Amino acid sequence: MPFDKFFRPKNVAIIGASHSEGKIGYIILKSFMDGFKGDIYPINPNTEPILGKRVYPNVLDIPDKVDLAVISIPAKGVPEALADCVEKGVEVVIIISGGFSEIGNKHLEEECRKIISGTKTRVIGPNCLGIYDSSSSVDTIFLPKERCGRPGKGDISFVSQSGAVGSTMLDWLAEQGTGIGKFISYGNAMDITETDLIEYLGEDRDTRVIAVYLEGIKDSGKRFIEVCRRVSRKKPIIVLKAGKSEKGKKAVSSHTGSLAGSGNIYSGAFKQAGLIEAETWEELFDFARTFSSQPLPRGKRLLIVTDGGGFGVLATDEAERAGLELPEPSKELKKRLKDILPDYTVKNNPIDLTGDADAERYRLTLEETVKSKEFDAFLIITLFQVPTLGEDVVDCITAMKKHNRPIVVCSTGGEFSERMNKRLMANGVAVLPSPERAVKALSALHRYWKYLTS
Amino acid sequence: MPFDKFFRPKNVAIIGASHSEGKIGYIILKSFMDGFKGDIYPINPNTEPILGKRVYPNVLDIPDKVDLAVISIPAKGVPEALADCVEKGVEVVIIISGGFSEIGNKHLEEECRKIISGTKTRVIGPNCLGIYDSSSSVDTIFLPKERCGRPGKGDISFVSQSGAVGSTMLDWLAEQGTGIGKFISYGNAMDITETDLIEYLGEDRDTRVIAVYLEGIKDSGKRFIEVCRRVSRKKPIIVLKAGKSEKGKKAVSSHTGSLAGSGNIYSGAFKQAGLIEAETWEELFDFARTFSSQPLPRGKRLLIVTDGGGFGVLATDEAERAGLELPEPSKELKKRLKDILPDYTVKNNPIDLTGDADAERYRLTLEETVKSKEFDAFLIITLFQVPTLGEDVVDCITAMKKHNRPIVVCSTGGEFSERMNKRLMANGVAVLPSPERAVKALSALHRYWKYLTS
Repeated sequence: MPFDKFFRPKNVAIIGASHSEGKIGYIILKSFMDGFKGDIYPINPNTEPILGKRVYPNVLDIPDKVDLAVISIPAKGVPEALADCVEKGVEVVIIISGGFSEIGNKHLEEECRKIISGTKTRVIGPNCLGIYDSSSSVDTIFLPKERCGRPGKGDISFVSQSGAVGSTMLDWLAEQGTGIGKFISYGNAMDITETDLIEYLGEDRDTRVIAVYLEGIKDSGKRFIEVCRRVSRKKPIIVLKAGKSEKGKKAVSSHTGSLAGSGNIYSGAFKQAGLIEAETWEELFDFARTFSSQPLPRGKRLLIVTDGGGFGVLATDEAERAGLELPEPSKELKKRLKDILPDYTVKNNPIDLTGDADAERYRLTLEETVKSKEFDAFLIITLFQVPTLGEDVVDCITAMKKHNRPIVVCSTGGEFSERMNKRLMANGVAVLPSPERAVKALSALHRYWKYLTS
Repeated sequence: MPFDKFFRPKNVAIIGASHSEGKIGYIILKSFMDGFKGDIYPINPNTEPILGKRVYPNVLDIPDKVDLAVISIPAKGVPEALADCVEKGVEVVIIISGGFSEIGNKHLEEECRKIISGTKTRVIGPNCLGIYDSSSSVDTIFLPKERCGRPGKGDISFVSQSGAVGSTMLDWLAEQGTGIGKFISYGNAMDITETDLIEYLGEDRDTRVIAVYLEGIKDSGKRFIEVCRRVSRKKPIIVLKAGKSEKGKKAVSSHTGSLAGSGNIYSGAFKQAGLIEAETWEELFDFARTFSSQPLPRGKRLLIVTDGGGFGVLATDEAERAGLELPEPSKELKKRLKDILPDYTVKNNPIDLTGDADAERYRLTLEETVKSKEFDAFLIITLFQVPTLGEDVVDCITAMKKHNRPIVVCSTGGEFSERMNKRLMANGVAVLPSPERAVKALSALHRYWKYLTS
């Protein structure tokens, strides 16, 4: 695919590689040296070696053919560097540098656009963080790793118009232990847009879920809808649209200079194109993580199983708001549940295993209810504050994956809970910290299934 | 006050203190021995010492006057034990034991009610976790501390009908480093209700904010409203009502046997009584922590200051949804901001200090904008992924407290961010992990101010 060179280049030229620790051009070079397997060519007029690497004065001086160039020099020098890349035949370029249309300098951005017009060279940026690819270690995120963590390998890919939203995402996911595939902060989108990237990720084998933070659509609305409609048939696209309010639209225009249209029009278009809209920053991740780990339901019949009645009630309220159904277990199923559960447990929906539940009680309940085929999705609430519920419940929930039904676990608390939650997530179970967020994620899965089957 | 003996007893009798590690009556005894300063009298027919303490066969055998009795024995033995407490003149009793009306055993609960009727003895429970008081170390939460953390001292007090919601709260707050005053899980409320507890906490010097998890009102609705209206004039009461949906109401009745009325009627009554309603489990804490640390605004003019444009846009969208105003800085203020900030920063509202902002830039901006008196509340977004923003911003935000304006910080990410956030919270700044949650908390402060002044 044409964009593959961005993510799996054989070599990279870093135009603006710096001799000074802490400078952007130094951090980028160092990131590549940390993990990237291909050749690295630092470019700087001062050709003293950096980190032991030979420095070239210009991309044109590199003896080899160059796959990817990363430009991180002051804005005014960018057109010349870009022209050199075109002359050298570099097909993909990431311009990190800011100082273009986002501060009103439209002329300079237009100049860059003209330079690549009619050539084979394609550009991500300017005014962006660029790319982080967990497989190839292409990493142009110029934030040091002790401040901005890099997630390990996973199958969620992120496309973010905003660099800060993107980097906060990366750092947070790394902390949570959630892996990602590709990350792209595309900034001003002088050439490659959100639509191009979504189209590319739609074909990308390493991407199962596409998550998008959007301020405005840089491509034509029509093409955006067309591409998304096509891609969303194959992979879920989760989108967080910022600037849906009147004041928010104004804020967008001071931020990325995008024109943000009416929120309702966006939401309508998203729905048509099969996009799953997240309403908040947290939902973007909640949904992405849930889609990445769970199969789709084949209906809206949700079963809630809990060891705390109150959490069950809160989840029930949210399920009703979200339009999910909570059917009672059939007579036959209730009878079977009576055989395996203590008298004082509640065999409705939610099933309340009560505060002395252990892993075995969860296992028996889950097996019976899955076998019954009376439910399309499962919300399992495990409050680990009670000492009867131990690590073995992690295994029993993980074992449920073989039934290929969506399962979201709701669990929250202190150190022990956190440890169990990380273990569940490492085993490919979606874990969310509140009953409401867990139900919303399950409802998003259901919405997507409905789109695909209607 | 009549309930003081629950929270500051001189001594305690633990009826059902157990010789077996892991048993509820053992854990409760141990918790008291860990921190409680008064005398402790374990009660058990088997009078072998427990944990080196002399054991009495009956509360009537205790030589001293008894302030508080905690009953944790099988349900069928509770009436007799309670009668002994009445005979002994014990004025406050916590019945931990379950097995009463929550499983349909209304008769046994009625029997207990008759035993205390017309006496001086008052009861919390049955079927509850009871009390945790961070000052006196009264602690009847029978969950081991390695599973359910106990928060340190603070001025939020919690009243929870559900034990599991309550214990998850405690564990989560302990993890977050948020202190609390008193915690009461009141269960079936055979005698003392949510209304009694709210009334008591309204007078309690150690309580600044009252947070309530409610499934149904056990007292008369009229008295609940009357008491809340009186208390909410003095202290904010934040309430999460579970069972507002049709299905949720049914779930409540299988859980605490409460009758949950229509959600809309509840919300209307809460509003009249000046209660601040939380819509989700997370909001209950977000609001409680914000009210506990922040003064009220005196209007709805919010200023957003950010180092990441995207987060500023998301906060703007939420502010518009919440009905808060985001006035532009006046001409004079913009001029002053131009003098102190780099050209490329955005001097609207949000003020975008951009990704290279340092603490000094925040300090100058906050000082100028506070001085201007053009804003009633401040949302400060600090994304610590950028290396320019260091620990010193913690001091500069903390210093803002002297101006006595509500300030909420939005910050999220990995280890470094978490460290800074904990430091900010320890300094009495409210920190929330998403722009939407931060704005909602500020909006709750504004709602309460409006209630008080209208």
